[in-house]
Amino acid sequence: MILTVTLNTALDLTYGVPELVPHASHRVSDISERPGGKGLNVARVLSALGHETVVTGFAGGSTGAVLRELLADLPSRDAGSADAAPADAGPAAGSGPVPATVADAPASWPAPAPITDALVTVAGNTRRTIAVVDRTNGDTTQLNEPGPLVATDEWAALLARYEELLAGADAVALCGSLPPGIHVGAYAELVRSARAAGVPVLLDTSGEPLRRGIAARPDLIKPNADELARLTGSRDPLRATRDARRRGAHTVVASLGPDGMLAATPDGVWQASPPARVPGNPTGAGDSAVAGLLSGLVEGLGWPDRLRRAVALSTATVLSPTAGDFDRAAYEELLPRVGVEEHTTAA
Amino acid sequence: MILTVTLNTALDLTYGVPELVPHASHRVSDISERPGGKGLNVARVLSALGHETVVTGFAGGSTGAVLRELLADLPSRDAGSADAAPADAGPAAGSGPVPATVADAPASWPAPAPITDALVTVAGNTRRTIAVVDRTNGDTTQLNEPGPLVATDEWAALLARYEELLAGADAVALCGSLPPGIHVGAYAELVRSARAAGVPVLLDTSGEPLRRGIAARPDLIKPNADELARLTGSRDPLRATRDARRRGAHTVVASLGPDGMLAATPDGVWQASPPARVPGNPTGAGDSAVAGLLSGLVEGLGWPDRLRRAVALSTATVLSPTAGDFDRAAYEELLPRVGVEEHTTAA
Repeated sequence: MILTVTLNTALDLTYGVPELVPHASHRVSDISERPGGKGLNVARVLSALGHETVVTGFAGGSTGAVLRELLADLPSRDAGSADAAPADAGPAAGSGPVPATVADAPASWPAPAPITDALVTVAGNTRRTIAVVDRTNGDTTQLNEPGPLVATDEWAALLARYEELLAGADAVALCGSLPPGIHVGAYAELVRSARAAGVPVLLDTSGEPLRRGIAARPDLIKPNADELARLTGSRDPLRATRDARRRGAHTVVASLGPDGMLAATPDGVWQASPPARVPGNPTGAGDSAVAGLLSGLVEGLGWPDRLRRAVALSTATVLSPTAGDFDRAAYEELLPRVGVEEHTTAA
Repeated sequence: MILTVTLNTALDLTYGVPELVPHASHRVSDISERPGGKGLNVARVLSALGHETVVTGFAGGSTGAVLRELLADLPSRDAGSADAAPADAGPAAGSGPVPATVADAPASWPAPAPITDALVTVAGNTRRTIAVVDRTNGDTTQLNEPGPLVATDEWAALLARYEELLAGADAVALCGSLPPGIHVGAYAELVRSARAAGVPVLLDTSGEPLRRGIAARPDLIKPNADELARLTGSRDPLRATRDARRRGAHTVVASLGPDGMLAATPDGVWQASPPARVPGNPTGAGDSAVAGLLSGLVEGLGWPDRLRRAVALSTATVLSPTAGDFDRAAYEELLPRVGVEEHTTAA
C-alpha cells in the first residue's frame, strides 16, 4: 500500500465561463466538483496504475463531507472515464465494428485499485478551490481558500493515525500546503517518523515547509523550477538540484515543465524529456509525476524507467481534456518515446 | 406576516483577494458565507424592521443544508450586527461612560422579528454565488452558478406550499431568477394565485419571466433602469414606467440608482431622491428597497412615506461596510432627508 498525506485537502470546483471579465457579473455555464489537494490527486493516479493507496490528512464541515462522498466514488469513476482505446484507433473506435485490438486493450491495464479514506475529521470546513476557466481562450484563474484552522488535538490525532498507517506502507508521499494552525516544521516531523519506520518518503511542498522538511532528509523531493529557485537561489537546474541534495534530500527530481525532469540521485544524474511539447492544461501534471515516481519506486524500477513513467504520465495529464486526469492512450503511446539521458558529471 | 418567494436561493460567498488578476492564482484572504437570493435578502431587512416573515422557494443538497443552517441563525445575528448608535455618537460610544441617548437608542427599534424557513427541499444542489472583492480597488467580480434542475413534482410541492402560506400572508414578494427546469411563466402563475387569494403581490425579476409576470397584473414591480429599458424599449424613466403600467403592473417603482426612485401609481407619480450621492457597494440595495416598499404597504403608509423609507433603506445599504446589510444609524439619519416630489402630469 502507498500512503499519501494531504494536510490541506480541498473540494476542487471548476467553473466554465464564456469569458472572464474583471468587475463584471458572470453566469457559470458548467461546473465540476472533485476531491482535491495534491495527495488525493496522486492517489487517483496511483489507483489507475493499479496501486492500492490510503489517503490521510484533514477533512471537515459540509465541504469535507462532500469531498469524502466524492472520494468514496473514485476508483470506479476513474475506471469509467479512462480511455482504454489506443491513440491511433482514430474514428474506427466509434464507427462500425470494434477491432479486436481495441476490444483487447483494457485487459493490458490493471483494474483501478481501491483508495481508502483514512482522513482525520476536523471541526473546521475543508477549503474550496475554484478554477475559473475562460472558454474563449482556455486560460484558468485560480481562487484558493486558505483552509480550516487545525487545532492542536486534531494535529495530534493526525500524528497518531499517520504512525499506524506507516506500519503498512511501502512508501509515503507528503503533499501540498499547510492549513492554518499547523506549524511550519510539520512536514519535517512527518519525514522523521517515516524514516524511523523505514518507509521511503517523498516530500512535495514549497516555501518554508519544504526548506524545513528537506533538513529532515526525505528520500525524494519533486520541486518545480520556481520552487527550486526559491529554495536554492539558483535558476540553473543542475546547480540547484545539487544544492538541494546538499541541504538534505537524498534524491531531487526537478520538474521542468515542457522540458521534462532532471533527477539528481545518489546513483547519478538523469534528464528525461517528452518527445514533443504538447498543448493542454498543466493542472495536476506534477501530481501525476509524483505518482509515476512512487509507483516506480515500489515496483523496484531503476531511475531511467521511473523518470520515463513520470514524464509520460505528466505529459498525458497535460493532454487530458479533464484537468488532473491523464489520457491513458496517450500515456501508453508516450512511454517508449520519452528520452532519458545520463549526465556524465557527478551528482 | 410577509411572505417572500426565492425560487433560486443561493449560498452567497464573498472572497476577498488582494487584487484580481485574470489567469493568475490567488490566495483568498477572507471569506464570508451567507444565505442569499433576493427574497432571503428582503426577509433579512424586513426582520430588522420588526416584520415577521416566512421564506419559501427551493433548497437542496449540501449547499442547501448550509444555507438553511445560516438562515436559522439570522434574526439573532442581524440584531448583533446592526449598529444602534446614532451616526453622530462618534468615539464616545466606545470610550468612557456611554451617554444616555446612545444607551436608549436601541429601544426606538423593534426587536428583529423571526424569519421562518418554509423552503421546499429539492434533490439538486442549491447554487453558490461568489463575489470576488478586489481589496485594492474595491471592485467586485461576480460568478453565479445556474442553480439546480427543479423537477415537475418539486414545482408542484412549491405551488402547494405557496397556496397554504398565502392564507396567512399580508403581502408577498416574488424575487429573483428562475432555476433550470422552471417554466418561464412561473411568476405569472404565482401572481395569479396571490391575486385570487387577495394578497398584495410584488414582483422583482427580469427578462422574460418579468414580461410574463406583468401580464398577470401584479400590484407592484420594482425594475431598475436597465430592466425597465429591456422591458419597454425606452430609457426615459417616466415614459417607461407608464408603459410598464399599461402592460399590466398596477404600480411601477423604478429604482434609478443614485437618483433614487420613480413611482408610477394609480394615485399619482412621485420621484424620491436621497439627499446626496454616497460611496459604497450597491449589492442588495434593490432588495432593501423592496423591503421598504412592502413594509410600508403592510403598515398602511402613503406613497411618499413608502418611497422615503425605500430610498433611505437602499442608501443605507450602499453605505454599509457589509454587502447587503444596511447601516441602521445611517438609515435613521437619512429618512427625514429623502426628498419626495409629485409629478403634476398624470400617471
